Amino acid sequence: MKLYSYWRSTTSVRVRIALNLKGVDYTYVAVNLLAGEQGGDAFAAVNPSRGVPALELDDGTILTQSVAILEYIDEVYPDPPLLPADPVARAQVRGAAACVALDIHPLNNLRILNYLKDTMGQSQDDTVAWMRHWMTNGFTAMQKLVKPDTPFCFGDRLDLADISLVSQMVNARRFDLDLSPFPRLVEIDTACRQIDAVHRGLPESQPDATPL
Amino acid sequence: MKLYSYWRSTTSVRVRIALNLKGVDYTYVAVNLLAGEQGGDAFAAVNPSRGVPALELDDGTILTQSVAILEYIDEVYPDPPLLPADPVARAQVRGAAACVALDIHPLNNLRILNYLKDTMGQSQDDTVAWMRHWMTNGFTAMQKLVKPDTPFCFGDRLDLADISLVSQMVNARRFDLDLSPFPRLVEIDTACRQIDAVHRGLPESQPDATPL
Repeated sequence: MKLYSYWRSTTSVRVRIALNLKGVDYTYVAVNLLAGEQGGDAFAAVNPSRGVPALELDDGTILTQSVAILEYIDEVYPDPPLLPADPVARAQVRGAAACVALDIHPLNNLRILNYLKDTMGQSQDDTVAWMRHWMTNGFTAMQKLVKPDTPFCFGDRLDLADISLVSQMVNARRFDLDLSPFPRLVEIDTACRQIDAVHRGLPESQPDATPL
Repeated sequence: MKLYSYWRSTTSVRVRIALNLKGVDYTYVAVNLLAGEQGGDAFAAVNPSRGVPALELDDGTILTQSVAILEYIDEVYPDPPLLPADPVARAQVRGAAACVALDIHPLNNLRILNYLKDTMGQSQDDTVAWMRHWMTNGFTAMQKLVKPDTPFCFGDRLDLADISLVSQMVNARRFDLDLSPFPRLVEIDTACRQIDAVHRGLPESQPDATPL
């Protein structure tokens, strides 16, 4: 399969970590978001939502939307699972993951920031304050939803909430978010980063990474 | 079970329709978002994300985040299913649903609009233009992802994508979005609204609905 990806895209980070964890081989197809490649007609044929990640299966079927792709990966490659077996526990993991996937990321991706600046006339500083505001909001909720004393968000192994957290932490650090209110999330992020599958999914490990 | 809900919240609409479709009885607990009830300490104990919907199970467990709640409902009450059985088909339904759940709704909910106005100084007109922009964007992608000629988004019965669409259409009409580019979505919405479970989930059917 092929993964359309951009090194710094946090939704791409999530999918890369999931594929790595499950030992699924894939071809990396870099889409340069900063150069606007996702907006071109060629890529719109791949993904009408004009975003990454998109996952192209071996028969040419293209799956879009990271949350849908992650559920697909977990259904087709169940080992190790990204979600527990019990429905209530699954809802709790998905709910914590959604603090990132729904309450932070959709507000902070590139097209939103461009709209705030280009259409609404907001400054770079105000745009960064916007990003930090929603990260703080989402992390505050997430920290209350995860378990207080497990190695990872909900137990002793990585799940969908951990993958979402470690991906968002990349952006939190990139935009100098004050992490002091989130010691529990920092602790989990540190644990996640010890795992090779996570490390190989991070931006700096990708073929299209550029020097910072 | 208890559903914490607000009549006009489109994520609450989604969960209400799902519960109605599956014939699950629930107690409706109105949370007045316009009066700011979701921001109070009492409700923060229910939902750290301070939003509706939240689903309280009979043992007191509280599930948050509409996407997680919808998956829970579908897992625990599988008949009729909100998702097909095949993993690729499931990813396609979830991907189309995400055009609403991730690409539109998180940008257009009340706290975002308040931030644009109160913190960023945007006018009411510019805020409505923002809402319409992301609705147009998300609907454009969604219309390309659904099937071209089925009664509903992906077949002859309602699924998660249909539920997401009909809920967002409530807001599209409320904010006078030009729907002429979306004939296929309007057609599906019309079909959905014929279904009693959908009708009973719409804002105007709720106990906390106020005259417009």
